Amino acid sequence: MPGLSELRKLDAQDPLKGFRERFVIDESKLIYLDGNSLGRMPKSVRDLATEMMDHQWAKRLIRSWNESWWQKPQEIAAKIAKLIGAEADEVLLGDSTSINLFKLAAAALVKQQGRPEILSDDMNFPSDIYVFQGLIKLLDKGHQLTIMPSDGIYGPAEALMKHISDNTALLSLSHTVFKSGYRYDMATINEAAHQKGALVLWDLSHSVGSVPVKLNETGADLAIGCSYKYLNGGPGAPAFLYVRRDLQAQLKNPLSGWWGEANPFDFGLSYRPAEGIRRFQVGTQPMLSLAMVEAGVDLLLEAGMDRVREKSLSQGQILIDLWRERLAPLGFKLNSPQEGHWRGSHISLGHDKALGIDLAMIHDKAIIPDFRPPDNIRLGITPLYTSFEELYLAVDRMVEIMEQKLYQPYLQITPTVT
Amino acid sequence: MPGLSELRKLDAQDPLKGFRERFVIDESKLIYLDGNSLGRMPKSVRDLATEMMDHQWAKRLIRSWNESWWQKPQEIAAKIAKLIGAEADEVLLGDSTSINLFKLAAAALVKQQGRPEILSDDMNFPSDIYVFQGLIKLLDKGHQLTIMPSDGIYGPAEALMKHISDNTALLSLSHTVFKSGYRYDMATINEAAHQKGALVLWDLSHSVGSVPVKLNETGADLAIGCSYKYLNGGPGAPAFLYVRRDLQAQLKNPLSGWWGEANPFDFGLSYRPAEGIRRFQVGTQPMLSLAMVEAGVDLLLEAGMDRVREKSLSQGQILIDLWRERLAPLGFKLNSPQEGHWRGSHISLGHDKALGIDLAMIHDKAIIPDFRPPDNIRLGITPLYTSFEELYLAVDRMVEIMEQKLYQPYLQITPTVT
Repeated sequence: MPGLSELRKLDAQDPLKGFRERFVIDESKLIYLDGNSLGRMPKSVRDLATEMMDHQWAKRLIRSWNESWWQKPQEIAAKIAKLIGAEADEVLLGDSTSINLFKLAAAALVKQQGRPEILSDDMNFPSDIYVFQGLIKLLDKGHQLTIMPSDGIYGPAEALMKHISDNTALLSLSHTVFKSGYRYDMATINEAAHQKGALVLWDLSHSVGSVPVKLNETGADLAIGCSYKYLNGGPGAPAFLYVRRDLQAQLKNPLSGWWGEANPFDFGLSYRPAEGIRRFQVGTQPMLSLAMVEAGVDLLLEAGMDRVREKSLSQGQILIDLWRERLAPLGFKLNSPQEGHWRGSHISLGHDKALGIDLAMIHDKAIIPDFRPPDNIRLGITPLYTSFEELYLAVDRMVEIMEQKLYQPYLQITPTVT
Repeated sequence: MPGLSELRKLDAQDPLKGFRERFVIDESKLIYLDGNSLGRMPKSVRDLATEMMDHQWAKRLIRSWNESWWQKPQEIAAKIAKLIGAEADEVLLGDSTSINLFKLAAAALVKQQGRPEILSDDMNFPSDIYVFQGLIKLLDKGHQLTIMPSDGIYGPAEALMKHISDNTALLSLSHTVFKSGYRYDMATINEAAHQKGALVLWDLSHSVGSVPVKLNETGADLAIGCSYKYLNGGPGAPAFLYVRRDLQAQLKNPLSGWWGEANPFDFGLSYRPAEGIRRFQVGTQPMLSLAMVEAGVDLLLEAGMDRVREKSLSQGQILIDLWRERLAPLGFKLNSPQEGHWRGSHISLGHDKALGIDLAMIHDKAIIPDFRPPDNIRLGITPLYTSFEELYLAVDRMVEIMEQKLYQPYLQITPTVT
C-alpha cells in the first residue's frame, strides 16, 4: 500500500519525468486517465501545424506535394515501424483502422482461397468484427466468422490455438484488448497459426506506444493500428498498417486507388499496383491530421519503448495495489489481468454502479477515465504524462465518490469514444 | 481582346472582389491558377485550427467527442449539401473520394444483381477507374467495366446514353472532367440511365464549389466529391458522399465500421446499419483536417454559387479570348470546350512543348498552373480569389515564355498532384 509521499518520491526519480511538460497540460487539477482513447496534445503539434498551414498550404500551395506531403505517409510510418519492431518499408500511415483492416482482411481471404474461416474472439474491438461481417457479405462466397468466447478478462488463447485448422484463412485479434487490457502473446499465436497455414492480422490500437511490439521477431504477417491513443496523434488521426515484406507482392489491395498505383502521374486507365508497401495506399490523405502524428511518435522514440513499458508496468502494479487496499472493500472488481505480463497499459475496474461512478469522476472530481459497458471503468496509464502521484489522487477521489455517494445523480448513459 | 485597363475595371466592379482578402495571399506577384487542384487557405482556417487544437484537443480532450466532433461530419456535410442541391441528410463528410467511390459502387452492384456492367468514359479520373477495377476483381462475379472513348475534349454523352442497357448496373462519370474541363449535363444523363434501370454515380470533385450542381432536381442517385479543390478545405481534406434519401435504406455499405453502426456505444458484436446517411460512415475521422473544410464552404455559401458561376463563366470567356488573340498564334491549342455551358471552371491549353512551358511558368514567371499528360496546361479559375487582371498577366507572361524560349531548359517530368 504505497503512500502519497512514496509516490511523489517515485515521480522525483522517474527517468521519464521530463516528458510531461512536453504536452499541453493546462488544468493541473485534472487527472487524465484516458490517453488510451485520445492521447494528450504534444506541444510540438503547434509548430507542426503552423508550418503545415502557414508555410506549406498557404504559401507553397500545390508545390508542397512534391516538397513534403507526398512522402509523409511513408516517412512517419518509418518512425512508427521502430515502435513496433518492423522495417520502414513494411508500414504505411493513412486511412482509418477499419479501412486498413478491410484492405488486409480482404487481401488475406483472396490469397487464402479455399479456406472459409475468419477467426477472432469476443474481446476484439467491435468495429473489427463489423468489418469482417461486411466483407463476408460483400464477397458472398460462404466465408464464416468464428468468434471465440472469453471469460471477459483473459483472451481465449488456448481455445483459439486449438481451433485453428486448415479451414482458417485468417486469425485476427486485438493484441491488447480494449476492455480488460489483456495482452496476447504474439509469438505463440503467430506460430500456432502458421503451423496450420493461417495468416494472423493484429490490431495494435491499444498496444502501439504502450507495450513493446516485435512484429518481425514474432513472424507477424499483418497488422493495423491507430495513432490517436498512445501515439498522441490527435483526434481521429490516420491509422497505420503493416504487411511483412515477403507478403506484400502476394497480396492485392482491394481498394485500388491512385495512391497505390505504380505511377499515378501517368494517369493511365489500367491499374498496376505499386511495388512494395505503397500498393496499400488508396486515395489522397488528410495531410494536416496526418502530419501531426509525427509529434507524438518522436516523443516515444526519444523516451524509448522499454522505459515506457517499465514505467507502465510499475504504475499498473501500484494502481492494482491501491485498488486492493482501498477500492476492493468498496465493491470494485479488477476486470483486468493481475499480472503485468498479461496486460497492456490500462486497467479496468468493475462496479455495479460503474457508470454513475464514472460520471462522478468526470463531473465532480476532475478525473477522466472512460466507460465501457457493461461495467468497466477504464483507467489508462500513459507513462509519458501520467504521474505516480496522480494514481494516488485518483484512487483517493474515487474513495470520496463512494463515501459521499456522488454517483447517485448520474443515471443516464452518455457515450464516450474510444 | 480585352485590355489590361478593362480587366482592372471588371475587378473594381466585381461583386465578389471582397473575397480575395479572406484568403492568405502572401506573394502578391504569384498568379495561382491551380485552385482546381489545391485551393488556397481561407484565413479563418487559422482560428478553426487554434480552436480545434488548443481548446478542443489540448484542453477538453476526450470530452470534445461529445461536445463537438461526433456531429462534425454531418454538420459540415449539411452545408456542402446546399452547394450541390441536396438535403442535409443525404450528404456525409469523411474518408477519401476513392474510398467513398468504392462504398457506393459496391453497394450499387449488390443492389443491381444480375446486371454485370459498370459504364464510364476515358475522361474519368483514373483513380475512379482503378477503384472499379479493384472492386470487380474482389467480387469475382463477372462484372465488366466499359470505358467509352471520347474525343479528349467533349464527353461521349450520346454514345454513353445509347450504350446503357438492361446490363448496366452503374454509370459513373466525372461531372466536370479533370483534363478538358468538359461538364456533363447531369439531368439528361440521369434520365437516360433511369429509363434503363441503371444507377448513376457522379464524381463532383471538379464541380463542387465551381459550378452549380442540382442533385435533387436532376434526380441524381449517388455522388462523391473532394473538398480540397474549389472547396478550399486543405491538402487531402476528407471527401464527401451523397446518397438520395430513398436509396439509403436499399444500399449496404460494404465497409461496415463502427461509425456506421446503429449504436456504436453498445459495443455489440453483430453489425446493425444505422438508419439514414450515417450508415455510410466507416471509422473515426481525422477531425483536424475535417473541421477545416468548414471555412471554405462557408465562404462559398456567403458568395453564392450563382455569383461564383457567373464570374467563372466571364473569366473563362476572357481567358479564351486572350488565348485566341495572343496564344493561338504561338502554337497553343484549346483543349477545353469553347462554350461556357459545357465547361467547369478550368481551361486546358495544349502545346507540343507543354511540359516545358508549364515548368517555366512555375519557376520563371510566378504562375502556378498544373500539367496533365500528354500536353495539357490546366489553368484553374477560382472566382473567390482569381482576379481578372491576373488572367491578363498570366497570358502576358506566357507570351514572354514563348518569345524568350524559357521552356527550353525544362526537359524532365516532375509530378504534380490533382
